[in-house]
Amino acid sequence: MSFEAAVNRKALQIAKLSIEMTTAAGSGHPSTAMSLAHLVTVLMYHQMRWDPKDPWNPSCDRLILSEGHAVPIIYAAYADLGGVIGKSKAEGRAMTREDAMSLREIGSIIDGHPNPKVGFPFFDAATGSLGQGLSVAAGMAAIARTQGLDRNFYCIIGDGESREGQIWEALDFIVDQELTNVIPIFNANELAQSDWVSPQQSHRTLVKKLEAFGFIVSDIDGHDPAEIRLALDELKVVQNGPRPLAIVARTIKGWGAAAEQGMGKHGTPVKKDKLAQIDQELEQTARDLGVNMGDAAGSDLQIAAITTKAPAHISTAQKPIKIAPLAEGLALVGLDKELAAGKPIATRRAYGAALVALGAADERIVALDCDVKNSTFAEWFAKKFPARFLECRIAEQNMISAAAGAAAAGKIPFCSTFAKFVMRAYDQVEMAINGGANIKITGSHAGVTLAADGPSQMSLSDVAFFRSYCHVKNYNGQTAVRYFFPSDAVSCYRLTELMANLDGCCYQRTLRADTKALYKADETFEADGYKVLREGKDMLLVSAGYMLHECLKAADELAKNGKKASVVDAYALPLKSHGIIELAARSGGRLVTVEDNYTGGLDAELALAAAGTGLKLKSLRVGQIPKSGREPQDVLDYLGIGVKAILGAV
Amino acid sequence: MSFEAAVNRKALQIAKLSIEMTTAAGSGHPSTAMSLAHLVTVLMYHQMRWDPKDPWNPSCDRLILSEGHAVPIIYAAYADLGGVIGKSKAEGRAMTREDAMSLREIGSIIDGHPNPKVGFPFFDAATGSLGQGLSVAAGMAAIARTQGLDRNFYCIIGDGESREGQIWEALDFIVDQELTNVIPIFNANELAQSDWVSPQQSHRTLVKKLEAFGFIVSDIDGHDPAEIRLALDELKVVQNGPRPLAIVARTIKGWGAAAEQGMGKHGTPVKKDKLAQIDQELEQTARDLGVNMGDAAGSDLQIAAITTKAPAHISTAQKPIKIAPLAEGLALVGLDKELAAGKPIATRRAYGAALVALGAADERIVALDCDVKNSTFAEWFAKKFPARFLECRIAEQNMISAAAGAAAAGKIPFCSTFAKFVMRAYDQVEMAINGGANIKITGSHAGVTLAADGPSQMSLSDVAFFRSYCHVKNYNGQTAVRYFFPSDAVSCYRLTELMANLDGCCYQRTLRADTKALYKADETFEADGYKVLREGKDMLLVSAGYMLHECLKAADELAKNGKKASVVDAYALPLKSHGIIELAARSGGRLVTVEDNYTGGLDAELALAAAGTGLKLKSLRVGQIPKSGREPQDVLDYLGIGVKAILGAV
Repeated sequence: MSFEAAVNRKALQIAKLSIEMTTAAGSGHPSTAMSLAHLVTVLMYHQMRWDPKDPWNPSCDRLILSEGHAVPIIYAAYADLGGVIGKSKAEGRAMTREDAMSLREIGSIIDGHPNPKVGFPFFDAATGSLGQGLSVAAGMAAIARTQGLDRNFYCIIGDGESREGQIWEALDFIVDQELTNVIPIFNANELAQSDWVSPQQSHRTLVKKLEAFGFIVSDIDGHDPAEIRLALDELKVVQNGPRPLAIVARTIKGWGAAAEQGMGKHGTPVKKDKLAQIDQELEQTARDLGVNMGDAAGSDLQIAAITTKAPAHISTAQKPIKIAPLAEGLALVGLDKELAAGKPIATRRAYGAALVALGAADERIVALDCDVKNSTFAEWFAKKFPARFLECRIAEQNMISAAAGAAAAGKIPFCSTFAKFVMRAYDQVEMAINGGANIKITGSHAGVTLAADGPSQMSLSDVAFFRSYCHVKNYNGQTAVRYFFPSDAVSCYRLTELMANLDGCCYQRTLRADTKALYKADETFEADGYKVLREGKDMLLVSAGYMLHECLKAADELAKNGKKASVVDAYALPLKSHGIIELAARSGGRLVTVEDNYTGGLDAELALAAAGTGLKLKSLRVGQIPKSGREPQDVLDYLGIGVKAILGAV
Repeated sequence: MSFEAAVNRKALQIAKLSIEMTTAAGSGHPSTAMSLAHLVTVLMYHQMRWDPKDPWNPSCDRLILSEGHAVPIIYAAYADLGGVIGKSKAEGRAMTREDAMSLREIGSIIDGHPNPKVGFPFFDAATGSLGQGLSVAAGMAAIARTQGLDRNFYCIIGDGESREGQIWEALDFIVDQELTNVIPIFNANELAQSDWVSPQQSHRTLVKKLEAFGFIVSDIDGHDPAEIRLALDELKVVQNGPRPLAIVARTIKGWGAAAEQGMGKHGTPVKKDKLAQIDQELEQTARDLGVNMGDAAGSDLQIAAITTKAPAHISTAQKPIKIAPLAEGLALVGLDKELAAGKPIATRRAYGAALVALGAADERIVALDCDVKNSTFAEWFAKKFPARFLECRIAEQNMISAAAGAAAAGKIPFCSTFAKFVMRAYDQVEMAINGGANIKITGSHAGVTLAADGPSQMSLSDVAFFRSYCHVKNYNGQTAVRYFFPSDAVSCYRLTELMANLDGCCYQRTLRADTKALYKADETFEADGYKVLREGKDMLLVSAGYMLHECLKAADELAKNGKKASVVDAYALPLKSHGIIELAARSGGRLVTVEDNYTGGLDAELALAAAGTGLKLKSLRVGQIPKSGREPQDVLDYLGIGVKAILGAV
């Protein structure tokens, strides 16, 4: 059988199964799936170097389905190939047609959108919130490049989806990094959900844009097996140079069955009583193409062999990372003298030092930053380990998704930018969490004490946002996000180390301002821990970060008036609140939380923990939109959360 | 004096003041400001049709400074022109040099980054978190276009900033809408914060990209007055056709003083003891250009006259919007029969109906959606009022910022997409809040009951995120965000009407699933209200949206066993919690919150309100990442938050 005939037959078979799966599920996007029938067939049965029996193999090529709603076509091919599914190798088994037909069932691991952690290891990251897959592919590809591995990362993107700005961030990143091992494939089927795509997303305009962005572009008929193969063959030539290849494939939404084509077929499965008609149309298409769809014989297509050998991923659990003692770590970046002199050190500097110490301790550590590395102090890592640093420029969405890709490639990526700008990528963060990505995010200039630049640079809702994930289990049964807010260089150094040793997403806030050391160099910190800094009988002040220092000042003032305050450094979320509630009871039954962010952080954490106890709780927090002030103290006073306000509250 | 000489002299004068302001502030970005000296001079003293004495004039051209950190150059020009500052016309006064020198002081309205609400009405929106200004400009321009007003919107974007994907979303939108009244001006000074810009953001690549996106591009020397004027003159020709003009201006960061040029000068003001040296360098530049910088004579430049007449903005307070009674409103979209028959109606449909009724009641209502209008039901509005509907395609960031622009143009924009995808634009939402934008956001398919598509389409942290703004006052002294979560068609219809009548940002969640009516057609709802649906002595269940119906079912089950539960519909945040706490006390002192989102919503709201009371509080919420299930009930049971779980909890 010719290559064309074999591809056509297989494309029809997997299109048919995609329809049947979505009909069984009662929801899904069969017409989008059908538009990818040939592309997916050529990729999965011919082009990609991979092994259906070992989808975890870190040496194989990968397919990233950015337009996640098209996933039934991948499931169909994978079931046909008997690809292994399961949450781990131990649980692995070959996917069957029955698995495919369980699509979207609550008990099934064949989920509505791609997610490796639900049990479909062919994928590397959760996709489905559009525009993110290409960044994931780029992150994986950048790691493969530094490892010298010959792996390709094929990424399928919808034409409508290419309206998302993140796609263009990813394309810039790919060109910057000369990642010719990423192949963006645009599925130009011309139909979006509620309308035809804009002329700005037509295949002609896409070709022009991609060329302007620096790609070599192949504009093909996405239902012509020979054209697809030819376009992919170009890779061999393209990969000799620095410019990456992009493919714009003209396709038909609902290819193979006229009744599935045109407007209004986006998220609508075929009704059961229409299946026979669709079948007939597919059979007719088969006849037109001169193939026999029902032929049970082998596919005549050959999956390409894996040609490279990657080191096995080392899980965090297997190899704890231990960094240099504090003084040594700070010495790596010249901060040791300040430490020795007892000078205040900004936690963002301690982060930079810890990152360098981590880099020295373990080669899995990589770092990413968005053109603020001289503010976050990721630049120290960039200088020491340039091959393990990815400058993402001013494009936070791409950074977070690329980090998810790097994590999927076995690395432990540390991302940094201003905490305010992490916000730009909250959807990407959530998708990374859903996919179980082992990413570490540090947002600098947290809270209001950066002062002069004003609220456009201040993170105010980040605590509420990240805390919401702190009481959620991910698919591995772990806490979905671990949150940290260190108040001094010692705790920041140690918490950064701790983040590297925790599996899953961590978020840390660092400060612009210098803060005094509160801890001795050998102090230890826990994932859900806190520290009792003072014990007093009259009240308990609970805080973290900059405001903790304000609480200590307030406690000193109170002491002058004969009042004894307990003070707790609540540097982590979720928090082992039980002990804090007991301490509050011993501290006059009065608890005051002090934060320089909007509500939803420590106030919510402790109010929920204190419910039913009768403890009096007062929360000091930012209650109005801040503004610029030349000094941190100006802003704290303006907002009514400084020492004076703490004294007023107690 | 020639035009060139006049521009050069003025450019030097405002560059000098920019330096002095930032030195006085002790922070800021003088070198970026200097790179814009000529562009800002030609725009503000020559090209723009505006009136420094009436910056609120809705007929004038506008300047949107997307790279907000360059703002000192605008302040300097504005002070020189004696432009009016103040939070309102009543408070307005001419800006002085002293005002400029108060930059970033806590008591000053000359803030670190642009914000009209702090008191600088020359601007229309808060900028400074990069990449957002062009969308704001596009939103304003789209409104001017529908109003038939001859207004231009000049938007200055940094070259480094153009890495942000949102810029490319905005460019697509501008071309789609043929907004030749927006003029994106790229400040190609080649230096970003921590490094030179990538070749992907070089002026050459920017020109290529802009052409591929459909722009007529003018590539100019941004320090040559004649070239700038010539490029802007092109507008007269360009505006006869559909393709917009973009300008790529090659500039020098730190123009005018060599000591301010090159790397490492980004966010660093000139030290006081270096001011004299910088002054000498500026004087030397003046001599080289043949102008006398100190010349106090008039500028020889003439601000262009305003040529169009816009209707005055009508404030919400002045003109309450009243929509049709429910049955009439539903009849507008053919839903009246379902209402009459007592059939369940999804709140997203009621939203669509209310939007149409609002559109009929008031022409200020405009709507925006991101290619899911057939799911959010914004499509009903799009069909009835096509001239007031902006299809933003799959680009949520641009939608939110464009809505902020539409609000600045006096409209009441309603944005809709899946609640999950609103997340894509949380940073844009916050900037809109900071700028006091009167925007209304409705996120559909909220919570977990969309079921089959899985968590990539579920909003889970949105309640915690938006709640954090519900206890914050904006610069107008109003609650920064009003949050609503209606449970039936009646309340959704009325809350949508209420949103139109509240000034500032509102966020509403709607449901995919149909829900039964809980209220009569004439029921009324308040911004911080709740409804007591049942009163019982044994416990209080508090919920909203879909889960409220589960609570009612649970209350029925409990009644069978002789237990009486109170049930409250807490459809709003912030919530007048006091009455709920009292009700809980009367209901056996037991309060259960029931939500299908992550923690940080009703649980936090009521735990804080109940603190100190001794009430027992239990919160049911989503405690693990959900997955696909074919029916809502499957997912609720999987997550342990369905009726069974409620019964278990009480």
